Amino acid sequence: MTRHKLRIIPLGGLGEIGKNMMAVEYGEDILIIDCGMMFPEDEMLGVDLLIPDITYLLEHKHKLRGIVITHGHEDHIGALPYILPQLDLPIYATKLTQGLISVKLKEHRSLIKARLKLITPGVRFQVGGFKVEAFPVCHSIPDAVGLIIYTPLGAIVNSGDFKIDYTPVDGRPTDLSKLAKLGNEGVLLLMADSTYSELPGYTPSEKIVGQTLEHIIGDAPGRVIIATFSSLISRIQMVIDAATHHKRHVFIVGRSMRDTVKMALELGYLHDAGQVLCTADDLKKYSHSQTILLTTGSQGEPTSALVRIANRDHPEIRVHQGDTVVISATPIPGNESLINRTIDNLFRQGANVIYGSRSNVHVHGHGSQEELKMLLTLAKPRFFMPIHGEYRHLVIHAGLAKSLGIQESNIFVMDNGNILEVDGEKARIAGKLPYGNVYVDGLVLGRHAQVILRDRKLLSRDGIVVVIVALDKNKGCLVGTPDIVSRGFVDAEHDGTVINQGRELVASTLGKGHHTEQSAIHTRIKETLSKFFYEKTKRRPMIITTAIEV
Amino acid sequence: MTRHKLRIIPLGGLGEIGKNMMAVEYGEDILIIDCGMMFPEDEMLGVDLLIPDITYLLEHKHKLRGIVITHGHEDHIGALPYILPQLDLPIYATKLTQGLISVKLKEHRSLIKARLKLITPGVRFQVGGFKVEAFPVCHSIPDAVGLIIYTPLGAIVNSGDFKIDYTPVDGRPTDLSKLAKLGNEGVLLLMADSTYSELPGYTPSEKIVGQTLEHIIGDAPGRVIIATFSSLISRIQMVIDAATHHKRHVFIVGRSMRDTVKMALELGYLHDAGQVLCTADDLKKYSHSQTILLTTGSQGEPTSALVRIANRDHPEIRVHQGDTVVISATPIPGNESLINRTIDNLFRQGANVIYGSRSNVHVHGHGSQEELKMLLTLAKPRFFMPIHGEYRHLVIHAGLAKSLGIQESNIFVMDNGNILEVDGEKARIAGKLPYGNVYVDGLVLGRHAQVILRDRKLLSRDGIVVVIVALDKNKGCLVGTPDIVSRGFVDAEHDGTVINQGRELVASTLGKGHHTEQSAIHTRIKETLSKFFYEKTKRRPMIITTAIEV
Repeated sequence: MTRHKLRIIPLGGLGEIGKNMMAVEYGEDILIIDCGMMFPEDEMLGVDLLIPDITYLLEHKHKLRGIVITHGHEDHIGALPYILPQLDLPIYATKLTQGLISVKLKEHRSLIKARLKLITPGVRFQVGGFKVEAFPVCHSIPDAVGLIIYTPLGAIVNSGDFKIDYTPVDGRPTDLSKLAKLGNEGVLLLMADSTYSELPGYTPSEKIVGQTLEHIIGDAPGRVIIATFSSLISRIQMVIDAATHHKRHVFIVGRSMRDTVKMALELGYLHDAGQVLCTADDLKKYSHSQTILLTTGSQGEPTSALVRIANRDHPEIRVHQGDTVVISATPIPGNESLINRTIDNLFRQGANVIYGSRSNVHVHGHGSQEELKMLLTLAKPRFFMPIHGEYRHLVIHAGLAKSLGIQESNIFVMDNGNILEVDGEKARIAGKLPYGNVYVDGLVLGRHAQVILRDRKLLSRDGIVVVIVALDKNKGCLVGTPDIVSRGFVDAEHDGTVINQGRELVASTLGKGHHTEQSAIHTRIKETLSKFFYEKTKRRPMIITTAIEV
Repeated sequence: MTRHKLRIIPLGGLGEIGKNMMAVEYGEDILIIDCGMMFPEDEMLGVDLLIPDITYLLEHKHKLRGIVITHGHEDHIGALPYILPQLDLPIYATKLTQGLISVKLKEHRSLIKARLKLITPGVRFQVGGFKVEAFPVCHSIPDAVGLIIYTPLGAIVNSGDFKIDYTPVDGRPTDLSKLAKLGNEGVLLLMADSTYSELPGYTPSEKIVGQTLEHIIGDAPGRVIIATFSSLISRIQMVIDAATHHKRHVFIVGRSMRDTVKMALELGYLHDAGQVLCTADDLKKYSHSQTILLTTGSQGEPTSALVRIANRDHPEIRVHQGDTVVISATPIPGNESLINRTIDNLFRQGANVIYGSRSNVHVHGHGSQEELKMLLTLAKPRFFMPIHGEYRHLVIHAGLAKSLGIQESNIFVMDNGNILEVDGEKARIAGKLPYGNVYVDGLVLGRHAQVILRDRKLLSRDGIVVVIVALDKNKGCLVGTPDIVSRGFVDAEHDGTVINQGRELVASTLGKGHHTEQSAIHTRIKETLSKFFYEKTKRRPMIITTAIEV
């Protein structure tokens, strides 16, 4: 048997939090782990989302054997609707993850009939030449798994997103014994979640949130409105449990959460023995002190139910004095101001808002430093690659591994597109794919998105000025007066002075001359106006000139 | 003597963090407290800064007696260059604050000869009909004061920005005895800083940062680069002290910090007995282990020295393996991603970066809940108005006051422009000024800025399409082919299909018809193209049409 080199190529999720994807290649087989999306950063104006760059996979289509998904969060499944039409592969996932993938593909009206294969933790399955086994991990969604991939060179472990919770709500803790056993047998390479590697200590158990919600709901004088992520199924279960205990009815507000709850009830991941879940039609039947509203919008998303409620903009629900609002989530970096504004608006309307890390209404789903050390200690990998995190998280995680005695030369802090090549003995970074971001902007999967984004940035800063001149087709001289239209620059409607002066300036610049060289005209108009506008306004709008020949 | 009502009107700093300004009016006198600016929020595209709306002050110019400044931070002095030309008033400030105001006016090349009046804590001074006394408070800048304003109806206390630090670096703690004495004599109204009212407990002393910096500098194998705010003069002193102790030389990088350090040395707020401060020319004389660089850029500001260093974009300074970088600041909300990116880039270049609240390299300058309670307990005010903070901070601060036994009806959570009217016995909110934001955008103090900002937002989202048609002046029919120019919409340079199809669509829509009604043409083109572009791209660019008659 020929021994090949093993190649591990992260295609997303390194140096960033989101759009996780990883290729594992051995000989003629490539297995893909996860297929996530990521929300754009502020300066990516107008972009809807980012997905991994799969150029390498498209170039090696004949080797692709399947996509294994670790859990059902957007940053692990969100790119499927965009990538499945290009890579029609079987998808391996646990039951709830399958349910969430189906909801997602339905949302996108995907015509692809996804080939979903059910996996069961502890039961090995074959993906091309790879033997794979999933093991349960705790995360902020049920049915999350880590993966063991058995290769001829040794076992590879991918932790997925994980934390260690001895008292998880679904009673299914991270399988530490499995990891310990594997560690004793020998792990070639560990790839582990670095998202919270900055945090010392241990991440608290989800249980603490249940206790807090129980108290809040018990003490609330009026209605309770709880905002969380729709994928936080254990959180939803806690609300149902507390509602049952305190004889309240739970109303789900918003389509995405309704869809998820319906699916999770059907698949048995949510239980409503007390039948406290109600439909919106019943909302008026119960008094405020008998009511809990469960909604999305914990990130201050402008179109979410919570934000519309906070802005007095929701068709049915108004906040009243005496309402208690619980924000059961932490801000995703970049969303802080949106969330703060929502909290302020809820306070303005007399609600008591409970939020923030000190209120114990949320714990996150990733391991802190001591948990990361525990995984490293149990798995005892020969090689280590921190994954899932911005660059500093990877560096800090690498530092933890080093502090536990893993040789620095065996630790690989990588970028997306880097290729880790492993033979039985050694590992090294063997190059880098030309790696780009793929922007989803409407329907367009932009290849030249950088230009569009640069223009949007310029437009957003100082606006645009469009100059239209008509030239005589034969003589090349100016016909009539130039026209100037501007947007986002000065307030031309209330004070047209600058624009009018600009128009005169263009006319006098072109004068009565004969202009045969169009590009020279454009340059002259741009230079003259640019200087003039800057002097008058200290702004530099984008200037576009267009000459019509008549 | 006629007894007037006292009117307190916050003109900025309520429901927001920044652009603090407050008017205190009694009879024929108005005294102004602070004159700050604020950085715009993300969606205020292209706006440079925000300043308070002073319409009310301009309408009552004859009553204005002076501006008293509590300390030299931007959110308390930053609007002076914009407002002094409109309100030529004497400015009362302590010595360092005066120095910072002078630096600021010089930066703006202000032609106004500011009438600066020196105030000394504990020494009463007269501003129109008001007797005023400043008392020292601790904050993240020396020479900060709170104010006592003696009015015929009683004493008003404005805390300024404050924390309680028993071991401040400048040896000048908050004057608790003064406040206690005043509380016993009776305080009519307390207005107090709410910025950190969300935080339980006490804010740590600045001293802890000195100890941490001392350790970091002592242990660092190579160069140390420390980024902080130029106004954090006590922090700069600590660096000088630690450098002296560890025999290192300190180089100030960046103009604003150099200006501040120079001024603070001259005024005696910084001491460099060991003469460790060097000029940039000497940088090459010393080895890395003898060097400390002190710079701004702790907020990830794109043009700052630190960010340029992190991006390998600085003309002189490169980060090397073995460098230690200390980010001695916390992110101002909204700046998180910029700072994180800077940290990531520094790590990428091999630096060890020390940052974040757990590293003790920064403490903030505002009181936490126990300090706020202490002030309320000492001052024992009849009426209380939480100031300086977003709405939730004010509500939480009001809750603390209530928990200490202040009657709810005597606590006023207000908005900018609200008028608090106080007679000897009662206080009430007696109306609201029509209050607007004033945007500084280049030179323009925009009155109709909302329109400009709305357009910039639209432009930034889906770009712009400009359609130019030429019409025969007599017959009203289309001449030649329509022209379409787009920016930030699709990549017309690499794939002009959508734009070309749009052009044909406009031509066929207008056909050979005679168009006498210009507005009808614009509407038809817009509707047709808007629908077409959305179908093709799922984006809705701004569409501008312009018809030239030839």
